[in-house]
Amino acid sequence: MPTNSQPFSAESYFATQPPPQALDNDVASAKEFVARHASAGRRVVLVTSGGTTVPLELNVVRFLDNFSAGTRGATSAEYFLKAGYAVIFMHRQFSLQPFSRHYSHSTNPFLDFLEIHNGNDLPQITIAHDKRRDLLPVLTAYKAVQAAGVLLTLTFVTVNDYLWLLRAVSHELSTLGKNAMYYLAAAVSDFFLPTQKMSEHKIQSGKGNLSIEMDQVPKILKPMVDEWTKDGYIVSFKLETDPSLLIPKSRTALERYGHQVVIGNDLHRRKYEVVFVSRKHKPNSHTAETVVPEFEESWLRIPSSPSTEDGNVKEIEEDIVNELVRRHDKWIQTGKSSL
Amino acid sequence: MPTNSQPFSAESYFATQPPPQALDNDVASAKEFVARHASAGRRVVLVTSGGTTVPLELNVVRFLDNFSAGTRGATSAEYFLKAGYAVIFMHRQFSLQPFSRHYSHSTNPFLDFLEIHNGNDLPQITIAHDKRRDLLPVLTAYKAVQAAGVLLTLTFVTVNDYLWLLRAVSHELSTLGKNAMYYLAAAVSDFFLPTQKMSEHKIQSGKGNLSIEMDQVPKILKPMVDEWTKDGYIVSFKLETDPSLLIPKSRTALERYGHQVVIGNDLHRRKYEVVFVSRKHKPNSHTAETVVPEFEESWLRIPSSPSTEDGNVKEIEEDIVNELVRRHDKWIQTGKSSL
Repeated sequence: MPTNSQPFSAESYFATQPPPQALDNDVASAKEFVARHASAGRRVVLVTSGGTTVPLELNVVRFLDNFSAGTRGATSAEYFLKAGYAVIFMHRQFSLQPFSRHYSHSTNPFLDFLEIHNGNDLPQITIAHDKRRDLLPVLTAYKAVQAAGVLLTLTFVTVNDYLWLLRAVSHELSTLGKNAMYYLAAAVSDFFLPTQKMSEHKIQSGKGNLSIEMDQVPKILKPMVDEWTKDGYIVSFKLETDPSLLIPKSRTALERYGHQVVIGNDLHRRKYEVVFVSRKHKPNSHTAETVVPEFEESWLRIPSSPSTEDGNVKEIEEDIVNELVRRHDKWIQTGKSSL
Repeated sequence: MPTNSQPFSAESYFATQPPPQALDNDVASAKEFVARHASAGRRVVLVTSGGTTVPLELNVVRFLDNFSAGTRGATSAEYFLKAGYAVIFMHRQFSLQPFSRHYSHSTNPFLDFLEIHNGNDLPQITIAHDKRRDLLPVLTAYKAVQAAGVLLTLTFVTVNDYLWLLRAVSHELSTLGKNAMYYLAAAVSDFFLPTQKMSEHKIQSGKGNLSIEMDQVPKILKPMVDEWTKDGYIVSFKLETDPSLLIPKSRTALERYGHQVVIGNDLHRRKYEVVFVSRKHKPNSHTAETVVPEFEESWLRIPSSPSTEDGNVKEIEEDIVNELVRRHDKWIQTGKSSL
């Protein structure tokens, strides 16, 4: 196991950290899903969503977490489905999901919609009239997606679950080549605690302050581009709270990993403004180091005051997905080497 | 601000850490709620539920969290309502809530229940026949609680929100004297990061390992018993992963804080088995130090295989709440000094 002076590589990570129990089942589902849509000639996007945890104890009571309700991923998944993609929605347990996201228990509790009609042995329950107009399009889309079998939902909790699942699902998706997109919207921890360093039981309080020392999570975008996927279109996200870091850090990521797009977003403006950062001249990724990279940024903005269009609030994910579908089209037509 | 060698007292905590923005509004709601039920002669229980977070950054991206879906609190709140109590449900944002807890988005998604009946201008939506029998009692109880105004829901996220809110709501509830119960089921962090030590922006990765050093959260049960509440019946919880620590640690808590009951539970058996730990001889809490304390334990168990009664799965919270209502009755009749 690497020491403090020797950070984990992706290779040493997977060699020393245990796979999650559900992995084999999840991979089997992904394999079946990908094969089905491959034979239908349908494009498939992997959407990752929600935060990952870093357990501090083997019997987990305490964990480090990343702020993310899963709004970006759940909303984008809906628009990818609308655009005709099949979606593997790989999300943090209990984070928002496509369709049901409109009815959070806290802000829009569905029990408030329901009316009981007494009189029968088993009373009928209906949706209140004033709620029906909003619910109908969501429910109709949900039922169509279920019937068509175009949404596969997979679940992770820890950053370890996430890493193993991402590698395995990417491997399955890679059989689609350029028809696969990878939309990495999950908020993944940069740090983790190796199993070998965890305490078995709940850390006891009352013995002074708590000190935690964590290792860096290996940068998996590099092996993802070079080994796990094959000509797939890879989109990563960069979330910052200091706006001045957004573009430099997005460029560094592109340079370092050689994937297609980084979508930069500021924590406080992420619902109204994002920036697409990509390479201007598209050198072959294997010789990228010898070329002075040039980047282009394109901003995407919607009004920050909620405006409505046909009675629905405009969501920036609609524009993000449309732009990515356009770029993915081009990517598929042009071929990797010349793009 | 205390240094490492000088832990925070409750007093120094509230003198140095900022109150949450929503505090005044929440206190006003609690005041109105308590006054209304006081004049109706109704008992009120404060149920705290869910885990607390410890933000590592002022612009929060990363935080420490405690494992808790909020099942214990949300389930218990339903049984307290059934027993005729008014309930202040003070819970972690997005953790489970009474009634809606039966319909988690992940395991029992309500969109799956709904049927669209086309034909009209605005189609009717109804609950599918096979789901109606389960939903009816939940929905009926929910509507009755809403109509009677016996449930007040308050929300916290961080351990700081929790501490300020607990103190303020306890103060409001204390006007009910012995008619108030405090059921502290939230999983509260033992450690926190003082505002003064937080970094403003997202901690940057790529600069080696992460080291976090946290201060101990002050033990607030002591001022709660001595200052914030007045003759109220206080129930705390002790969750452990090492079963051998359960009873010793529960006893220590009772000795140290002088409240009424500790409910001990083991992480892996908490749905089937809990232990009530209380003092056998009931010395006046102010002279407790001079008396050799004697404790009594009473175990409460239900079968670990899901059994059904009238088609419903038995929940241990039903028995916990019934036992506490019995003890609270006795407490009210006997008076604090002689109990």
